[in-house]
Amino acid sequence: MKFYDCSTAPSPRRARIFIAEKGLDIPTVEVNLREKEQMTPEFAAINPYLTVPVLELDDGTRLNSTQGVWRYLEETHPDPPLMGRDAREKALVADREWRVEVEGFMAVGEALRNYAKPMADRALTGKHNYEQIPELAERGRARVPRFFEDLDRILADSEYIAGDVYTVADITAFVTVEFAGWLKLGLADDQSNAKRWYEAVKARPSSAL
Amino acid sequence: MKFYDCSTAPSPRRARIFIAEKGLDIPTVEVNLREKEQMTPEFAAINPYLTVPVLELDDGTRLNSTQGVWRYLEETHPDPPLMGRDAREKALVADREWRVEVEGFMAVGEALRNYAKPMADRALTGKHNYEQIPELAERGRARVPRFFEDLDRILADSEYIAGDVYTVADITAFVTVEFAGWLKLGLADDQSNAKRWYEAVKARPSSAL
Repeated sequence: MKFYDCSTAPSPRRARIFIAEKGLDIPTVEVNLREKEQMTPEFAAINPYLTVPVLELDDGTRLNSTQGVWRYLEETHPDPPLMGRDAREKALVADREWRVEVEGFMAVGEALRNYAKPMADRALTGKHNYEQIPELAERGRARVPRFFEDLDRILADSEYIAGDVYTVADITAFVTVEFAGWLKLGLADDQSNAKRWYEAVKARPSSAL
Repeated sequence: MKFYDCSTAPSPRRARIFIAEKGLDIPTVEVNLREKEQMTPEFAAINPYLTVPVLELDDGTRLNSTQGVWRYLEETHPDPPLMGRDAREKALVADREWRVEVEGFMAVGEALRNYAKPMADRALTGKHNYEQIPELAERGRARVPRFFEDLDRILADSEYIAGDVYTVADITAFVTVEFAGWLKLGLADDQSNAKRWYEAVKARPSSAL
């Protein structure tokens, strides 16, 4: 296997943390997004969507998304389980991880990509250029604190996002909270459930990656 | 189990098709989105995100997203498999389904919700109102034909989106093509791979649902 990563970017970080939690050591290629290495013809031949993470399997299959990377490694290296242990938990992890990605991670991404000067015509990833939409940056910013409210509500009822163990739902939520720091947004002081959870997750060795 | 559906909406259609492909008969509650039944306090108590599909399990657990509904039913009713048969295929299905949802389904949704008059202050689902952003509607429209190009390219190499069998990646892609019809957008005449696939999927009994 070969793992295409970018050590400064939040999307591949979700795969990187997962790999560390599994205790795996996969040969890694660093793709420097700040130098736009993902836009080269060489990288386009690896992933036409021009994004990391990518996991290349030994048969040449390439998985071009966090979802694909996670699922492959969960199936081939089931311990420790990070995507649920029984049918109900697997479903709850899929459900909540999806929700966190769409309501949290994507909102932060929208706010940032439609605002940051270096991304002036790169409001979306991929081979087509899209101009920034300032109203979308504002909407993204407005959504993040509301996402944090939901997080705090969920974490009032359970230790981790999808129950009593750490899963990929926590990985996406943790990376989202840290990603929101780029916008100078963070958990509110009175969100004590989310804060308790954040400190617990941050203490894991994988969170330093 | 209890399934909350809306027979006119594309999101729950992805779950409805899956349930039919599994040959399951689950008691179903129709939530009339056109009458805004999802905005009532009664429905908010079922799903605070105010969306369908929802699958309520016998222990009271509620799965509030297509991803959660699919995963639960795949684990508890594995035949026929709709999310991959081995590790590689499961990963490829997760990877491509995610891509189709983000690049296709969400682009159509963005174009529609930011344009249609009945959704004037409902550009996003959920309990908070967000105004429409006309530039986002335009961008969504522009992305859809590019998504169809990608679809045609993928289907040049394989019979279905994630290989040689029908999976959830095909469900999302099929529902996306039909949803794009609401914008009067469709596959181009020269996208012969995508057209061949679309006709094959459309012929399945579940596609009439």
